[in-house]
Amino acid sequence: MQFISEQRHDDGVLEREFTLGEIPGTEIPGTLWTPESAAPVPLILMAHNNGLPKNAARLVARARASAACGYAVASIDAPGCGDRPQSAADEQARTDIRRALQASEPVDDLFESFIGPLVEKAAPEWRTTLDALLELPDIGGPVGYSGWTAVGIRLAVTEPRIAAAAFFAGGYVPRAQREEARQVTVPLLFLLQWDDEGNPRQRALDLFDAFGTREKTLHANLGGHTGTPWFEVEDGNRFYDRHLK
Amino acid sequence: MQFISEQRHDDGVLEREFTLGEIPGTEIPGTLWTPESAAPVPLILMAHNNGLPKNAARLVARARASAACGYAVASIDAPGCGDRPQSAADEQARTDIRRALQASEPVDDLFESFIGPLVEKAAPEWRTTLDALLELPDIGGPVGYSGWTAVGIRLAVTEPRIAAAAFFAGGYVPRAQREEARQVTVPLLFLLQWDDEGNPRQRALDLFDAFGTREKTLHANLGGHTGTPWFEVEDGNRFYDRHLK
Repeated sequence: MQFISEQRHDDGVLEREFTLGEIPGTEIPGTLWTPESAAPVPLILMAHNNGLPKNAARLVARARASAACGYAVASIDAPGCGDRPQSAADEQARTDIRRALQASEPVDDLFESFIGPLVEKAAPEWRTTLDALLELPDIGGPVGYSGWTAVGIRLAVTEPRIAAAAFFAGGYVPRAQREEARQVTVPLLFLLQWDDEGNPRQRALDLFDAFGTREKTLHANLGGHTGTPWFEVEDGNRFYDRHLK
Repeated sequence: MQFISEQRHDDGVLEREFTLGEIPGTEIPGTLWTPESAAPVPLILMAHNNGLPKNAARLVARARASAACGYAVASIDAPGCGDRPQSAADEQARTDIRRALQASEPVDDLFESFIGPLVEKAAPEWRTTLDALLELPDIGGPVGYSGWTAVGIRLAVTEPRIAAAAFFAGGYVPRAQREEARQVTVPLLFLLQWDDEGNPRQRALDLFDAFGTREKTLHANLGGHTGTPWFEVEDGNRFYDRHLK
């Protein structure tokens, strides 16, 4: 893990850009936000759905809010996303999905063949990132997860260091992860936008029902995909406070 | 409004029993919890589903938690409930419902003919209680509502002084109130127990969908009717903080 820039914000939060790996073209770019703290702090892995770069304004705002609450927060770009090289195949897949959505054609198979492999590639990168982060002196544990549901399910069932997870329901969840949902046993907060365009509500409710954990909470708010109210960020931090502090 | 007893708790909350009305047999018995405060405080009307007396331990715990957060909290027993005289007809209706539930027979019509009229009787009593409470020097406004969904819908659409409402989804909602739900426009927190025995989940989700307000949030937790986790009380108080303070 190599830090390439750092910036101290007014609220005391330190924001550092890093890269992981050394083979040109395959480095993982990431950002780490840490609070001013004398003792090591718990960690939140903030995985965004693949459509957004890790420096999208609303992701950064959430990360800084959690850091200001006493958490180290880390985000990386998934393969082919954000600052990472995009293959011609990725570009074609995205074009096909956009076209199908605009034409109101079925998109499940397109999503399945694009997101399915992406989750398989992204999850091991998150584990590599987690290994590196936990070696830093200012990060302790336990570890929480936030955001992208499909990768979160994969991590929650394969990575015993994840102690609690908050998933955002918007975004395609491949069949394999819908099956794996039954094996998720960590405390869970599931965040749903009631009128999320392109993400069927009933499928999200079925997924909430399927999670194997005994301690799961659904928060649903009126509005579309990007309309999550800010108070949910605060609720999310309190969820982590209950399970990571 | 006549206070008949008072008790100061360790957390500074003052608990007072009161009665409203003077005709023997028709008095409304109530409890008022108020925090230590120099200035008048906002009010929460805590209406419980008709099956519980207002001094049920878990209701009292919630009321005191909200009072300790700076709210006056008032609860009354509905006609035929708690400390109030129960008619032979009420008793028969409850027996019929219990028998039908045990035999897994349809209960909607029994509930409709029992709860429908009860809501019609209870709502005006809450308005009378609200009038009396707002005359007390230690209570200001605005006014929030908590608990029993059916009475809450009735009040929210007929009582402009209600500024925000948190409804508990468990409990039969008569057809008239399911229709009225579209007219509810105050900010809303809707609390659902995912496996509430005897309260169909889909009906609760349909009701959440129907509420006319633009600012509505659903919180659902795993477990049965009485299994609501304590952190929902704290979430509820923060919901009121956003809208009543």
